[in-house]
Amino acid sequence: MNDLTQGQRKELTAEQQWQQFSELKTAQDYIESLRGRKLEVFLLGERVEEPVDHPIIRPSINAMAESYILADEDPQLATVWSSIAQQQINRFLHVPESPQDLVQKNKMQRRMGQLTGTCFQRCAGLDTLSVLFSITYDIDKSHGTRYHQRYVDFLKKAQKRNLIVGAGMTDPKGDRSKRPSDQADPDLFMHVTRRTEKGLYVTGAKAHMTGGLNSHWICVMPTMNMREADKDYAVIGMIPATAPGLTYIYGRQSCDTRALEVGDIDKGNAKYGGQETLVIFDDVFIPWEHVLMDGEYEFAQELVSRFTAYHRASYVCKTGLGDVMIGAASSVAEMNGAETASHVRDKLVEMTHLNETIYSSGIASSYEATQHESGAFINDPILANICKHNVTRFPYEISRLAQDLAGGLMVTLPSQADFEHETIGPKLDKYLQGKTSVSTEDRTRMLRLIENMTLGRNAVGYLTESMHGAGSPQAQRIQVLRETDFGKKQSLAKRLAGIIATDADSHLG
Amino acid sequence: MNDLTQGQRKELTAEQQWQQFSELKTAQDYIESLRGRKLEVFLLGERVEEPVDHPIIRPSINAMAESYILADEDPQLATVWSSIAQQQINRFLHVPESPQDLVQKNKMQRRMGQLTGTCFQRCAGLDTLSVLFSITYDIDKSHGTRYHQRYVDFLKKAQKRNLIVGAGMTDPKGDRSKRPSDQADPDLFMHVTRRTEKGLYVTGAKAHMTGGLNSHWICVMPTMNMREADKDYAVIGMIPATAPGLTYIYGRQSCDTRALEVGDIDKGNAKYGGQETLVIFDDVFIPWEHVLMDGEYEFAQELVSRFTAYHRASYVCKTGLGDVMIGAASSVAEMNGAETASHVRDKLVEMTHLNETIYSSGIASSYEATQHESGAFINDPILANICKHNVTRFPYEISRLAQDLAGGLMVTLPSQADFEHETIGPKLDKYLQGKTSVSTEDRTRMLRLIENMTLGRNAVGYLTESMHGAGSPQAQRIQVLRETDFGKKQSLAKRLAGIIATDADSHLG
Amino acid sequence: MNDLTQGQRKELTAEQQWQQFSELKTAQDYIESLRGRKLEVFLLGERVEEPVDHPIIRPSINAMAESYILADEDPQLATVWSSIAQQQINRFLHVPESPQDLVQKNKMQRRMGQLTGTCFQRCAGLDTLSVLFSITYDIDKSHGTRYHQRYVDFLKKAQKRNLIVGAGMTDPKGDRSKRPSDQADPDLFMHVTRRTEKGLYVTGAKAHMTGGLNSHWICVMPTMNMREADKDYAVIGMIPATAPGLTYIYGRQSCDTRALEVGDIDKGNAKYGGQETLVIFDDVFIPWEHVLMDGEYEFAQELVSRFTAYHRASYVCKTGLGDVMIGAASSVAEMNGAETASHVRDKLVEMTHLNETIYSSGIASSYEATQHESGAFINDPILANICKHNVTRFPYEISRLAQDLAGGLMVTLPSQADFEHETIGPKLDKYLQGKTSVSTEDRTRMLRLIENMTLGRNAVGYLTESMHGAGSPQAQRIQVLRETDFGKKQSLAKRLAGIIATDADSHLG
Amino acid sequence: MNDLTQGQRKELTAEQQWQQFSELKTAQDYIESLRGRKLEVFLLGERVEEPVDHPIIRPSINAMAESYILADEDPQLATVWSSIAQQQINRFLHVPESPQDLVQKNKMQRRMGQLTGTCFQRCAGLDTLSVLFSITYDIDKSHGTRYHQRYVDFLKKAQKRNLIVGAGMTDPKGDRSKRPSDQADPDLFMHVTRRTEKGLYVTGAKAHMTGGLNSHWICVMPTMNMREADKDYAVIGMIPATAPGLTYIYGRQSCDTRALEVGDIDKGNAKYGGQETLVIFDDVFIPWEHVLMDGEYEFAQELVSRFTAYHRASYVCKTGLGDVMIGAASSVAEMNGAETASHVRDKLVEMTHLNETIYSSGIASSYEATQHESGAFINDPILANICKHNVTRFPYEISRLAQDLAGGLMVTLPSQADFEHETIGPKLDKYLQGKTSVSTEDRTRMLRLIENMTLGRNAVGYLTESMHGAGSPQAQRIQVLRETDFGKKQSLAKRLAGIIATDADSHLG
Repeated sequence: MNDLTQGQRKELTAEQQWQQFSELKTAQDYIESLRGRKLEVFLLGERVEEPVDHPIIRPSINAMAESYILADEDPQLATVWSSIAQQQINRFLHVPESPQDLVQKNKMQRRMGQLTGTCFQRCAGLDTLSVLFSITYDIDKSHGTRYHQRYVDFLKKAQKRNLIVGAGMTDPKGDRSKRPSDQADPDLFMHVTRRTEKGLYVTGAKAHMTGGLNSHWICVMPTMNMREADKDYAVIGMIPATAPGLTYIYGRQSCDTRALEVGDIDKGNAKYGGQETLVIFDDVFIPWEHVLMDGEYEFAQELVSRFTAYHRASYVCKTGLGDVMIGAASSVAEMNGAETASHVRDKLVEMTHLNETIYSSGIASSYEATQHESGAFINDPILANICKHNVTRFPYEISRLAQDLAGGLMVTLPSQADFEHETIGPKLDKYLQGKTSVSTEDRTRMLRLIENMTLGRNAVGYLTESMHGAGSPQAQRIQVLRETDFGKKQSLAKRLAGIIATDADSHLG
Repeated sequence: MNDLTQGQRKELTAEQQWQQFSELKTAQDYIESLRGRKLEVFLLGERVEEPVDHPIIRPSINAMAESYILADEDPQLATVWSSIAQQQINRFLHVPESPQDLVQKNKMQRRMGQLTGTCFQRCAGLDTLSVLFSITYDIDKSHGTRYHQRYVDFLKKAQKRNLIVGAGMTDPKGDRSKRPSDQADPDLFMHVTRRTEKGLYVTGAKAHMTGGLNSHWICVMPTMNMREADKDYAVIGMIPATAPGLTYIYGRQSCDTRALEVGDIDKGNAKYGGQETLVIFDDVFIPWEHVLMDGEYEFAQELVSRFTAYHRASYVCKTGLGDVMIGAASSVAEMNGAETASHVRDKLVEMTHLNETIYSSGIASSYEATQHESGAFINDPILANICKHNVTRFPYEISRLAQDLAGGLMVTLPSQADFEHETIGPKLDKYLQGKTSVSTEDRTRMLRLIENMTLGRNAVGYLTESMHGAGSPQAQRIQVLRETDFGKKQSLAKRLAGIIATDADSHLG
Repeated sequence: MNDLTQGQRKELTAEQQWQQFSELKTAQDYIESLRGRKLEVFLLGERVEEPVDHPIIRPSINAMAESYILADEDPQLATVWSSIAQQQINRFLHVPESPQDLVQKNKMQRRMGQLTGTCFQRCAGLDTLSVLFSITYDIDKSHGTRYHQRYVDFLKKAQKRNLIVGAGMTDPKGDRSKRPSDQADPDLFMHVTRRTEKGLYVTGAKAHMTGGLNSHWICVMPTMNMREADKDYAVIGMIPATAPGLTYIYGRQSCDTRALEVGDIDKGNAKYGGQETLVIFDDVFIPWEHVLMDGEYEFAQELVSRFTAYHRASYVCKTGLGDVMIGAASSVAEMNGAETASHVRDKLVEMTHLNETIYSSGIASSYEATQHESGAFINDPILANICKHNVTRFPYEISRLAQDLAGGLMVTLPSQADFEHETIGPKLDKYLQGKTSVSTEDRTRMLRLIENMTLGRNAVGYLTESMHGAGSPQAQRIQVLRETDFGKKQSLAKRLAGIIATDADSHLG
Repeated sequence: MNDLTQGQRKELTAEQQWQQFSELKTAQDYIESLRGRKLEVFLLGERVEEPVDHPIIRPSINAMAESYILADEDPQLATVWSSIAQQQINRFLHVPESPQDLVQKNKMQRRMGQLTGTCFQRCAGLDTLSVLFSITYDIDKSHGTRYHQRYVDFLKKAQKRNLIVGAGMTDPKGDRSKRPSDQADPDLFMHVTRRTEKGLYVTGAKAHMTGGLNSHWICVMPTMNMREADKDYAVIGMIPATAPGLTYIYGRQSCDTRALEVGDIDKGNAKYGGQETLVIFDDVFIPWEHVLMDGEYEFAQELVSRFTAYHRASYVCKTGLGDVMIGAASSVAEMNGAETASHVRDKLVEMTHLNETIYSSGIASSYEATQHESGAFINDPILANICKHNVTRFPYEISRLAQDLAGGLMVTLPSQADFEHETIGPKLDKYLQGKTSVSTEDRTRMLRLIENMTLGRNAVGYLTESMHGAGSPQAQRIQVLRETDFGKKQSLAKRLAGIIATDADSHLG
């Protein structure tokens, strides 16, 4: 495409956009597909020429790439037959066609958490793909539009090429007491700025975009309910990550610059990391073929609520990280020679209990999914909220218990460079020796992993993202309040208390 | 059978035993089937001539009878096609033939909890019926015995006649530091005292027998693992509730004697209650046709552990009681005019969150059931333990929150007799009036229901039984410790920490 | 006074009122002082001729009487030199003259809780006596009234005669969305109906009056803030418990009627109980000498808030009950032969930890007391709220853990009458034998005590009253919100974040 | 001293050692006193020539220096009259002579926490100074030694010169299943290697030494109970931080290298930090005048237990950090325009409640101190353990709630360099604008402070050190188990249950 003019480059047709994507077969293919894209990426105040080779960014790419490896190594778990593509595809691109599909998705997510120990960044995109299937169906039914078929066409291509579609949902929001159209700066929510024959243009930004930089496509969509005045803000569209007008600004994470250091020990988890970016969209073109909502504001609320039904159950992924934490804590306990102490066992059981409680609520929500008229299955919304709400609590307690079992050394350990220092190194080996059967280095590595997940880079994914991802705790509480039928529960109580004996409730005489 | 001699009455053949049972179609049939049985029942120091009409006992019969009504009113939920009886049967008699069967069981249990607000006493029996199917199969396979067919024959009869089979599991245990055969008094665990050509005789007692008195048959079985020396204690058999040699001693419950008072208000839940009895078996005969284990001690452990896999998930029933609590608390809040206060809503959400968390772990355990060689499905054991463990915690917190929302009046309310007193009554009506749109009586009734479930008769079922039924909390913790593969979790952690890179674990290079 | 006419009886002068009270020296004196008072008392729908001898009421009198015994047996703890009476008095009548006084009060309260295992009903009265000292001082200062001296005169007489003054604070409140003067029925808040030369008349009711029936005097006072329109509701006065126009209606408690049964075992705690009554005041006269507020509505708010500063710290009494619970749980564990199990020890430690945490916040609030201009010391209000707020949580958890350690037998035990039954008794002894060194009766007694405190009569005092006494949880949260200086904390944060560097906050350069 | 030979330098007399210390009056004096000491300090694999000017180390010096500033600015809080020095001294050098002294200490600690938002590193040293006073007294009494006077002489000099004495307590411990004298390497516990006429020599290491580098003197002492075989390990001595043979290895902390970056925003708390070092003692000389225990192994246990009584109450310092967290969370809520949302207020109240609960248990322990025969006051040990145990829980929950209120932006914020970037900076200002009245920078700063305290450098002090400092949670539980008189509590329960009526317990007839 290099021979196109800037104007042409900007307003690429759908077909032209697709030309840049060929089918990816392996993790290596995926990683190569990210190279040379000349994105406008900024990190620590500097433009990053090649993100793929940047030591801070690469671990987040590795985490995503793991989803390709898993599909290869465990196809039963991580691939599935798609009735759209009519072929076996990566499950991260699959619209759930049964409760079992959703459960398998959860199991794959847990496994990915186990393998990466961090946020592997594909869930929001996957849940976006799922929700668009039924939402476009509903809009079409109500408005006589053709979004659903457009979407299916898009999805089929993405599935066949095995691409990553990221979710751009969260607008910056500005003054939270004001609606989109009331903001001082209209760009604080993404909106359509103009429409041409070929497509429309949007301007705005999407915050906290998980893995934004590592995607091939970005789906932009509304972040909350909209009113008629917000019509231009009710837009859904598919944008290539390489589209002109996009700027990516990388969010800092605790201990991020350890990735720049020599040696892999202090990193804790040297291979894998998460990624959150602020993506700015400056007059970005979307051809009509990739527009999936344009003004049907009354569906924004349902989009969000249906998305959260999927996405809040996706947080079972954290049980995979929890498995790593439990493993790390029990390893350290063993390395310290404390694994048979009753209080140590008790804490490991408690960690497991909390972790499995999260898991239960996630898969229960999937098993209890119901089918939408479009054919897609959607998680039980109350149980999905229960799952996510437990995720805002239990990882913190699991993390606290892991720190308990780790011991204070976790935060007083010298650096790898000290361990490798000519004169200091041997002294450290002498004095930090624990059980003689365990090397000081191995114990150090395990402690660094716990630091990584409770204070360091992946604590962002295990803790803070567990709190705020897919909506903060209060969002779940509001949803539970809305979706619970307290009136029905009151009837149960009244019947037993002898207050009302309506026919409907009457039982034993 | 009245013309039999005492000796003959004692050693009834299986066929003779079955003669007393005809098919029950309705709850009324069930209640009538309990009449005139001349059981040896003791309550508050006196023999009870007719339990069916005793005001303390009747509510527990009503609760059980509800299972017949539900089958009638909601057959999809509470009945099921049995491949054994080859007919539609009450689900409380059904050996699960699929995960869906187990989930439906859980939903029926929740519904029963909603309808009765107490322990309806059929779950232990149901879970016994389930576990016997696979255990007898396993024993036969190992020992060449014929227990499985015997059992299927028995079960088919029970299913066709629509009877209640209770579980007699918990031996008194005496000195807990000693095994069955080491006890000073051999009867502290039930054991075979002699064997004849026609059958065998057992002596002992079963404690905390839920709904013992309200059953048609009692299945006695071991309560813990056994060793060779305990061989005579490894016995399973079916005994008619009317068998000579049985004595039932009724356990006291908080506020039990309110059932003897005039008026229904102070009872809180006048219709329904639970029942726990100590059942003593003094030289009780079991014909061989009803003997399902006799000395195969090595299966006792597996019996218990498989039983708890079923039974700990059965504790989702408490979410039905939780629904009643939430309904009662929200009703009272409304009656107090406080339902829009943010802290009130927040507490109702919290109660709901905890209740649904329990529910999730129960149904997740059922959905994740696996099939035994015999054909029966068995709950996922870890998740079942997670479910029960949550049940030992959350109902207490739900109950605390309900008391919070109820207000202090719940424990300072005068009696119904005061409300009905000629001179005092009107004064109470005057001074205890809340919102004018709500009658003082209705508010009183709702408060009494909360008292009933948090301090009174049904607090036994909602709280203490939630703690100890199906095993005390520590039993679940031990089981979680045993069944969790910490080694696997350690491998996950080691891989990420860079400690070991075995082929099996190796992923992205 | 029996020769007075009804009208004269009604409008007794202060001097005449005092004639009925002579000095009480012993617990026996106290109990006798309650006899023959011909109060209008109703319980379970019947008038009680002599409360002192009523088996349900007597335990509550015993609990109060314990405060006389303790003064006798441990004078250092339970008596104190009063600068008002210029003599050693019972500490329950003492206005705190130092932080140490308040701490000693807390220690006495804990000891009383240990000795009675229930609510001994004197704290609200004591805290009323304390708050009146400073409030009357403040009103006088503002209005030029003479309440303070009147009050000191009253108090001196009460101290010298060693009497019990109860607190009548909580009005029924009716529709909670309406203020006193806006209620449909004006009597739903106590108010002055008329004033004469000799005094004034009040009508209304006081709900949840702890130990109302067991007092000699009742102090009526406002329950919340008042506005000018509520002027007639802003009244404080001292009324003899025997005054014409008073009616006492006894509140039901869980298991209350076990007190009517033969035998002491099933009662759990046969000697001691709590008491809550609804006291109705129908046109009751208060001579001016006993009027301590009449219309100074703007002090109602401060009265309540200062009272709660005292009273919320008084809830350390529950740590005495906590000591009993911990003792009972550890006893049962020992009786079950389980006392060395690590999880049992861990639970006992947790119970102790929670109990001592409550205690800490109570005594910390007392130690941090500040002196009012009147000379009286007042608890630190934030820490008092912290104490009470912990009391709304931890006793429930302690109680849950006690039920855990007790085992299921606690709620399935037969009645004492069964144990004493000719034929059944020996069978129960045989089968409910635990460790041979412990009698079945002793174990039963201990289990019944735990039942009593977690589900039965004294659960009202240990749990529900812990929740609602001295204000429900939300009341404490509102108070903490009001009294915390968040602005100051924000300044600390801003200084560290480098946001503002005002001179005041500036430190290290 | 530069003209001494190496041998002379090594075996300096006490007098010579003291020559290097002149009186410090200001924080500036203190900072200057640390310059030019030529310590062997290693950090990130390199020797640090001048720690005072090292950007990672300096914040920890600033935190300690704050104790000098506070003494200046609030002398009532942070200075006290010493009966030893017979002058007003910094309270961090004071042996408590009354409960009030201990309470004031706690208040100073909270204030220091508020001012620094981190661990200011002087508490362990202070508590060491306190415990030595009574322990040396006890050893002398038992052994006829002269440690106490030696110690008083030392302390007087330190007080007059206003120096910092650090605590070197925690030995590396090696294989935790082995006692000191059983370790493969004898140096894993510090021990006496030889004794000369002038003094003795020790070798070993002290781990997790808080502020080790920032002290003038280090007191080495045993870390656990000792037996006769461990005699040479039972040694207490005072060592100048500059003594030959000491090597300091600096522990890494989360985000430590942000201190090396340009700009102060991303640091969160740019001025203050904590410090943990591993200090190796290689054949270090201690003149007899500074030896305070040499072989009296039987006092090691009491030393530790008395030290923890002081030190576990010292953890009230974390309530100062808690104040900062609450301030930061409420600031961010305000900046987000969410401060009036009921759930936000509720979370701020909860944070405050937990923070004040910790505070209560700390000061309660101090107020309840008892006097040792030597004259020193020692904290109530149970309540001190309660305090510390709450510190192992509540800061984690406060931190979780702070993250909740902060919002997800806390972990996705770009770096300061991005904000200052020519082209990217303005875009960030545009899109990360919240309420227009608050600058994006200020909001960023506040979020970075919360990151700093929950994930970053000072999370080490606020969380992990709260867990492990002064002993891990299990250490407190063991202590509570040991110090609680369960027998007494059992007697209370037995009396109420009617089990035993001994004369001692008998009360109301």
